[in-house]
Amino acid sequence: MSSLIQMGKQAKAASFILGQAKTKAKNEALQALATALMANTDIILAANEKDLATASDNGVRDAMLDRLRLTPERIQDIAKAVKQVAALADPIGEVVHMWKNEADLTIGKQRVPLGVIGIIYESRPNVTVDAAVLCFKTGNATILRGGSEAFHSNLALVKVIRESLSASDFPADAVQILEDTSRETAQQLMKLNAYLDVLIPRGSARLIQAVLENATVPVIETGTGNCHVYIDKEAQQEMATKIIVNAKASRPSVCNAAETLLIHEAVAGDFLPTIIARLRAENVEVRGDKHVVAISPDVILATELDWETEYADYILAIKVVSDVDEAIHHINTYGTKHSEAIVTDNYFTSQKFLQQVDAAAVYVNASTRFTDGFEFGFGAEIGISTQKLHARGPMGLNELTSTKYIIYGEGQIRE
Amino acid sequence: MSSLIQMGKQAKAASFILGQAKTKAKNEALQALATALMANTDIILAANEKDLATASDNGVRDAMLDRLRLTPERIQDIAKAVKQVAALADPIGEVVHMWKNEADLTIGKQRVPLGVIGIIYESRPNVTVDAAVLCFKTGNATILRGGSEAFHSNLALVKVIRESLSASDFPADAVQILEDTSRETAQQLMKLNAYLDVLIPRGSARLIQAVLENATVPVIETGTGNCHVYIDKEAQQEMATKIIVNAKASRPSVCNAAETLLIHEAVAGDFLPTIIARLRAENVEVRGDKHVVAISPDVILATELDWETEYADYILAIKVVSDVDEAIHHINTYGTKHSEAIVTDNYFTSQKFLQQVDAAAVYVNASTRFTDGFEFGFGAEIGISTQKLHARGPMGLNELTSTKYIIYGEGQIRE
Repeated sequence: MSSLIQMGKQAKAASFILGQAKTKAKNEALQALATALMANTDIILAANEKDLATASDNGVRDAMLDRLRLTPERIQDIAKAVKQVAALADPIGEVVHMWKNEADLTIGKQRVPLGVIGIIYESRPNVTVDAAVLCFKTGNATILRGGSEAFHSNLALVKVIRESLSASDFPADAVQILEDTSRETAQQLMKLNAYLDVLIPRGSARLIQAVLENATVPVIETGTGNCHVYIDKEAQQEMATKIIVNAKASRPSVCNAAETLLIHEAVAGDFLPTIIARLRAENVEVRGDKHVVAISPDVILATELDWETEYADYILAIKVVSDVDEAIHHINTYGTKHSEAIVTDNYFTSQKFLQQVDAAAVYVNASTRFTDGFEFGFGAEIGISTQKLHARGPMGLNELTSTKYIIYGEGQIRE
Repeated sequence: MSSLIQMGKQAKAASFILGQAKTKAKNEALQALATALMANTDIILAANEKDLATASDNGVRDAMLDRLRLTPERIQDIAKAVKQVAALADPIGEVVHMWKNEADLTIGKQRVPLGVIGIIYESRPNVTVDAAVLCFKTGNATILRGGSEAFHSNLALVKVIRESLSASDFPADAVQILEDTSRETAQQLMKLNAYLDVLIPRGSARLIQAVLENATVPVIETGTGNCHVYIDKEAQQEMATKIIVNAKASRPSVCNAAETLLIHEAVAGDFLPTIIARLRAENVEVRGDKHVVAISPDVILATELDWETEYADYILAIKVVSDVDEAIHHINTYGTKHSEAIVTDNYFTSQKFLQQVDAAAVYVNASTRFTDGFEFGFGAEIGISTQKLHARGPMGLNELTSTKYIIYGEGQIRE
């Protein structure tokens, strides 16, 4: 615990300096960091080799190895992403609202950094740079806690970041990483209330659940997505088919992919044979309720468990519903409040769906796959919040800020 | 725990209905509630008598008894406050920002209720109505947990609220109160993640600390205020004196009252004798560092503990500083990030103070006492947040809302 408190103190001290830093200085430091990452490619790859070898020895499967692997091209991509963050507008200092009160005080609500941000994440080492850089741009110090499987890669990347920041006259402690990847230390980080302003978990549902259950510091919950597409009785068949195929099959492993299709009973018989055929052409396994099986007898019968599951895989559950109300009820019961879509031509049905579905992003006639900081036009993304406090949906730079009121008076006292 | 889960389920169900309610229906229900509170004055006062008798038997001191006491006038004031909330604009449904992305989706960020809000509070029974009404106006269901000392008063008030809401065709479970005021149940409420969207503690520093340490649900920390006024070397003596006397003595028990005066050494000798005399005329006890004692020998010598203490009383600590940097450092070290003020004629000094002091509200040439939802013009206040996530400073109706993205498409899929 003592070393964690020490890191907390160092982060707090660094955050004060970062909070006062000029935009130009921050951007130049990010440009220099992009160059440093490229220049240190060999060192980073050597460290990554160690992690890959260990993972391989441990029998880690290929998909996971690929997530862990760095290549010269991937390091180039990471450096490019750092330059993109440098090019984004700096939200710090923006006054989002300013007014006069009855006492003639001029009150402004100004964006300021959050302070110290903890990030707990898994496997992919590019998150190390990504998270550190987005926090740095917004004047926040970071304490990173990566997964043990990427231990050497993360340490090498953080070493490059810290040396590069130092060379740009910023405190190296703007970015720190826990060298102890034990569960105990992670638990301590979750309770580091004196130094952490917020903790953001990025990774599996299990990781996020563990953080939610144990943290006493403020947490921004990210990620898990049991998303639905509802095809209304007044939907256009081709549009509906394209949207569900895209929502499921364009990238099944991500959180904004659809897991269940809900379809109105009036069009199920007409639409489903084509939809199922098109999904199977994309290697999607289909599971359906008894109505779906009646229409398409080779479909596997779905159970209660299917409605609850985020497959993150080439599997889709299908349920026939009697109306939009049943669809909304199903979504509000089983969904994880991430992204939900309706396909309909009917104005009132679309409005009802938009209003009654409780989710971070609710779509009319578009794929759930658009829930993403880059697609939304934020130019960056630290994660997708599925909680209701502070930030909901894709989080860009603005979501890494707090505000303070700055108040200009002329000697006013309160009566 | 089982009854708490039951309450959570009922609150969730009620929150869905509240979230869809029309503004006019909500306002009419609030008007009816104001009438019902007045009509039930006798019942409420009878319940309050029981609490007062118990408190009196337990030797509770007069100031506390006064906080607990309801009178016909106070119930009238509570009813008037309910009508004022009815008259405020409804934030729910407001689209705060709407734009088109590169895929030509129209994306709107819309205010929606948070869902279910837990409130843990102490003594004053008017908080029961106040909190329930602000949450109701913003479409949120509430689970209240008041202090045992106001047990009968709170139950009587909640009974009136529930019956009145029912009569207005709203679910009674929009407002529920824990009848078990044990510490164990409070602890369970703090971990009711499946049903609570946010927990707001209102009360003593000890209560807030207990919530912070134990809660796994999202918390909005409110209240504690170790606030400072810094008088710069370029301050006007009369303005500075008025501001510190107002900040300390106009209402010492509240969180936006000043606890420490910091004064530049160049003006300390000149200003302090008058300031101390004026403070003493308001019955304020003064404690000072050795420089203050050298100027005014009858002042009590302050210790390290004084810089840390929120007296919430007619006591002020005074410290002489060598410049604005020392003042800022002192504030950022000992302050609770609530409200901080500088008195100065110098432009650059004021800017430095505004930028470098880390607090919810930073004032130039005005009293810290203005940090208040009503003074800020919000028309309401559920508390003053001293955390950086979600809301910072006075929280009005907007701070009781979340957002969701509503997205209008024409069949777009992601490439």
